[in-house]
Amino acid sequence: MQSTVIAELFKQIDALPIVDIHTHIDWKQPTARNIGDILSYHYYTELTHSAEAQPGESPEERFPFGDPEQLTRAIWNKLPLIGNTVQYDWLMTISREYLGLPASAWRASDGWQAVFRRSVEVMDRPEWSAQLLQQSHIRRVMLTNRYDEDLDGLDEALFSPCLRTESFLHGIHDPAEREQMAAFLGRPLQQVADVVAVIDKAAALFCDHGMAYAALSTPVNMRTFFVAEEEAQQLFDRIKEGAALDSEGRDTWNAYALARVCDACRRHAKPFHLMVGVNRDTYAHGVPSGMDLFDSLNSLSGFDYLFNAYPDVLFPTSVLADTTGLELTAAAWIRHNVFPSGHWWYSNQPTDIARELRRRLDVVPRNKLIGYYSDAYYLEFVLPKFRMYKFELAAALAERMERSRIHPNMETMTLDEVLELAQEMLITNPLRILGLPDLPHTSGG
Amino acid sequence: MQSTVIAELFKQIDALPIVDIHTHIDWKQPTARNIGDILSYHYYTELTHSAEAQPGESPEERFPFGDPEQLTRAIWNKLPLIGNTVQYDWLMTISREYLGLPASAWRASDGWQAVFRRSVEVMDRPEWSAQLLQQSHIRRVMLTNRYDEDLDGLDEALFSPCLRTESFLHGIHDPAEREQMAAFLGRPLQQVADVVAVIDKAAALFCDHGMAYAALSTPVNMRTFFVAEEEAQQLFDRIKEGAALDSEGRDTWNAYALARVCDACRRHAKPFHLMVGVNRDTYAHGVPSGMDLFDSLNSLSGFDYLFNAYPDVLFPTSVLADTTGLELTAAAWIRHNVFPSGHWWYSNQPTDIARELRRRLDVVPRNKLIGYYSDAYYLEFVLPKFRMYKFELAAALAERMERSRIHPNMETMTLDEVLELAQEMLITNPLRILGLPDLPHTSGG
Amino acid sequence: MQSTVIAELFKQIDALPIVDIHTHIDWKQPTARNIGDILSYHYYTELTHSAEAQPGESPEERFPFGDPEQLTRAIWNKLPLIGNTVQYDWLMTISREYLGLPASAWRASDGWQAVFRRSVEVMDRPEWSAQLLQQSHIRRVMLTNRYDEDLDGLDEALFSPCLRTESFLHGIHDPAEREQMAAFLGRPLQQVADVVAVIDKAAALFCDHGMAYAALSTPVNMRTFFVAEEEAQQLFDRIKEGAALDSEGRDTWNAYALARVCDACRRHAKPFHLMVGVNRDTYAHGVPSGMDLFDSLNSLSGFDYLFNAYPDVLFPTSVLADTTGLELTAAAWIRHNVFPSGHWWYSNQPTDIARELRRRLDVVPRNKLIGYYSDAYYLEFVLPKFRMYKFELAAALAERMERSRIHPNMETMTLDEVLELAQEMLITNPLRILGLPDLPHTSGG
Repeated sequence: MQSTVIAELFKQIDALPIVDIHTHIDWKQPTARNIGDILSYHYYTELTHSAEAQPGESPEERFPFGDPEQLTRAIWNKLPLIGNTVQYDWLMTISREYLGLPASAWRASDGWQAVFRRSVEVMDRPEWSAQLLQQSHIRRVMLTNRYDEDLDGLDEALFSPCLRTESFLHGIHDPAEREQMAAFLGRPLQQVADVVAVIDKAAALFCDHGMAYAALSTPVNMRTFFVAEEEAQQLFDRIKEGAALDSEGRDTWNAYALARVCDACRRHAKPFHLMVGVNRDTYAHGVPSGMDLFDSLNSLSGFDYLFNAYPDVLFPTSVLADTTGLELTAAAWIRHNVFPSGHWWYSNQPTDIARELRRRLDVVPRNKLIGYYSDAYYLEFVLPKFRMYKFELAAALAERMERSRIHPNMETMTLDEVLELAQEMLITNPLRILGLPDLPHTSGG
Repeated sequence: MQSTVIAELFKQIDALPIVDIHTHIDWKQPTARNIGDILSYHYYTELTHSAEAQPGESPEERFPFGDPEQLTRAIWNKLPLIGNTVQYDWLMTISREYLGLPASAWRASDGWQAVFRRSVEVMDRPEWSAQLLQQSHIRRVMLTNRYDEDLDGLDEALFSPCLRTESFLHGIHDPAEREQMAAFLGRPLQQVADVVAVIDKAAALFCDHGMAYAALSTPVNMRTFFVAEEEAQQLFDRIKEGAALDSEGRDTWNAYALARVCDACRRHAKPFHLMVGVNRDTYAHGVPSGMDLFDSLNSLSGFDYLFNAYPDVLFPTSVLADTTGLELTAAAWIRHNVFPSGHWWYSNQPTDIARELRRRLDVVPRNKLIGYYSDAYYLEFVLPKFRMYKFELAAALAERMERSRIHPNMETMTLDEVLELAQEMLITNPLRILGLPDLPHTSGG
Repeated sequence: MQSTVIAELFKQIDALPIVDIHTHIDWKQPTARNIGDILSYHYYTELTHSAEAQPGESPEERFPFGDPEQLTRAIWNKLPLIGNTVQYDWLMTISREYLGLPASAWRASDGWQAVFRRSVEVMDRPEWSAQLLQQSHIRRVMLTNRYDEDLDGLDEALFSPCLRTESFLHGIHDPAEREQMAAFLGRPLQQVADVVAVIDKAAALFCDHGMAYAALSTPVNMRTFFVAEEEAQQLFDRIKEGAALDSEGRDTWNAYALARVCDACRRHAKPFHLMVGVNRDTYAHGVPSGMDLFDSLNSLSGFDYLFNAYPDVLFPTSVLADTTGLELTAAAWIRHNVFPSGHWWYSNQPTDIARELRRRLDVVPRNKLIGYYSDAYYLEFVLPKFRMYKFELAAALAERMERSRIHPNMETMTLDEVLELAQEMLITNPLRILGLPDLPHTSGG
């Protein structure tokens, strides 16, 4: 490690404004109101539960999720067990940067009340969101929204809605979901054309509010293929009757619905952001949002049909399994419509970020790299997560600079040159690929 | 690399006493009697055979396994071909540390006799074991034992027996194995209940001798699922008749027997150590124990049922395939009863140790990390193998210290803090997770 | 990074002569005639097309492949978009080393004509090939040849033909290919014995011209197994009738034909070079040779039968998927007839080279390591590609040297010792394993 160069590079990259292309932030309440909200993030509940099993009959009962103060108390004494993790480091950054509390404040076994009190003082103020945004240079935040979410009042200069599409695929089997779609559409769902109409109506409404893209997290080894209207209709008829489709039938419906979402993306010239390869609800004794895993046996080849059939749709793509990392890099290397996007969930840690970052930097055209997104549930997490990434980026770029001085095939790279690359990955590319307007003052922050 | 910090850290980590949670050591003859015993370890026979094929009709005939002196002679001139390997480096450590012979003693083409002679002088003494244990600070050694092994006379302060359970799964198809089980039980195996009784009797006997855990090495992509007693009985009836079960039948029996081992672990509050993903006997022209490989296509998802069905059983888990590395890390990250354990066989080399170590250090609760085990057949291998790991650990911790000085999310870590982490991984966690008594003087060695 | 040691090591490794064990060079026109030929290499057309889609109805129409000058013009303004890639770095080395043009010559948006003109001056001369070979110390070049290629006039001191065998496997389904085989054989293909006769005749002819090895790039998850003559004949009868075999039938034919190629290798004591795991024609909108990808789900276990059935045939093996990397290392570690060979295509970039290199250096006998090949279509690419690899090798060996000074199991390695290892990997091993004559002056270059 070349600490001095990394530190200098990080400082400059950290000064860049933040464009966060994927979050789960609630735009009506984008920040936490206290440290209990922060600690309710599944990373803290799942890690402390993993460190030492939390009692409780169901996921919801393991921690007092309805009472942030008691949640803080319940989790406090287990935090030292996860003090080695990057997730704990995020928490310390939140504490230092936003609460003004040093890490030492977290070490006293009876310190939870003082921390909680301080967190309320800072976070439970009407001006907190605005202050945090300014302090952290957060300029654009993509959201995750249901098709029927009322977006009126959305601050479109800051937030862009993104149409989550699981409801049209797996969700179709849930009668309550179908009823909500019917309510949204204003008529019963009789034909597949009605489902398509839901997608269309949602896309049109979202576009009215500055939609960034459609989004889907996919199950492991999802397959895409052509499905005829008639076959989809037959499946939909059975779904309406409440029949449980077999695995083939479910896959076929998913492939059909996915293509219809792509049709909407095409029509509105919007990208489709894929997050590939999650196994839902595998850990029976977990905490809420802490029960999903991935499978190392996961292939991107199931998307060949989709990528080929929609050459005019852009597909920013994230993968969950480390084993799919080079496959994504290779797809982005030759496919004009695939863009490697950030580092997702279990792959969102230094070791795998570092590897994928280097692969992408070495063989994917520079204008296609989408550096990072936070996946955050509260705005407080954006800064620490981006800093984790930006540090790895600084390390990779410092290495690139040093290599360039002695590498037989490279020319010496300057600090300005590698910073330009960082700015493209973090700002220019995401804005251009997602069709978002430029930032008022892009350079410097 | 920051050589100075790594060297300092290694020195301190190397001074820690050794707790070795998995070996194949024969407690009645725990050390080698000469260098031929050492060279009979499959790493040396397989690597020299791979470098230059050794003649012989069968695995056993390739080297003179019955005659350590001739084995030494046969292997000697091929050793330079594997001089680049970490396994050769283990050998040199054994030579330097125990025989007092420098690496140069191994370079003369006629040097084998001198080395052999010296090895007999040192190793073929009654006090050799005790001396080695003291010299190398080896304090606890887990064994690998058959269910019917007579454990009377075992030095339980040093050795803990571990119940190997392959016999109850794949072994059931072998009539001789079934007869041995019947002999052990004292009555014929008629019902599956009799097989369960064998497991129970073995577990009880092992517990009387300080059993550490049950253990199993699993085939690639093993699946676990609920199997009803009646179905198991039907399968067992066919097995007794000598019928060859199809793959589905074998898998079903394995799933049944595995669950019964878990029942025993539950009853005795003992962990179950899994070693996941080996393909046995794939290389037809190999040497003994040098014929197994792994498959990069291997998933942990087959264990979802087991991990969920036995939340009260602890599962220290090793994986053979590098491709399962992040899957194991993710499982240990959220599942309260999965513990990443060491680095097994083909993954037990610096490149993959370094990667998995960093992943685990970054996202798995620190109290769940089981650093390393040697898998050794003779006590002589414990030290060199642990040193290989400890060097990677020192490198990872040195990097962590250096990062912490400039990382935006981290606080500066001291040498003492990272050493505490090392001690947890190497001593405190293994002892606590396996339910072993504390070491007399844990700190310092 | 220890820049000084790496630079010194690289300098010495770069001075070694080049033995290139796999290329696609046309021995009748081994060099490019202008920079347009260089830019027609799929890496440049696919990357610039990926960066910004190139219009065109078919792969061939996307760039003016027939007109090197216009191709240069078409690609020129997109080159900055791939300026971050290692492939662009190869281009700059070609420019600097062979054209005498600095990288800055490529930055002017109207510079293409000057570069093109200069390239013609240098490359379009009769003595260019000889001059390039001398300048770059290229001493041996393996080719890729169809069975019916006329090899008369081949400079066997420089070039060795390698028998590409896809025609005998997948090619068999193409009537035109079968006719060409019949023409080559001088009689119609009636029986499978006639196909075997084609293989035999080709092998014999190739051996007359200094054949190095037979070669095959395999589809993802290829399986090998015994196929009886009668079964192959039945399949061949159906193939001749123009029947489309199902996947099982195609696999069976492939397994049969592959074994017959191995028979020929055995008879002539020639190695069989395998390149494992490509998915052909997956990207419908690509450029020529830029439409293939790989699948992370790929296993070497399908080759168990082959490796076991032909213990007397040597199998230098490359893998395309990063996920097969440790599987290959493990196979080479224990199997006497498997040799890890170079770094192929999507794995031929610094991140994955660095990882596989370290794995192989640590656990595969040193006499089995085949360092690198260029896969080049023109001799101009040999030097920049080897330099990319040699830099990674220098970095790995520098790290090994530094580690050896503080590693508890290692002895201090000298510069000469690591250079010896490099020379084995790059020259001695490839020559010995492929049965090629020694270089006139091996050491120094």
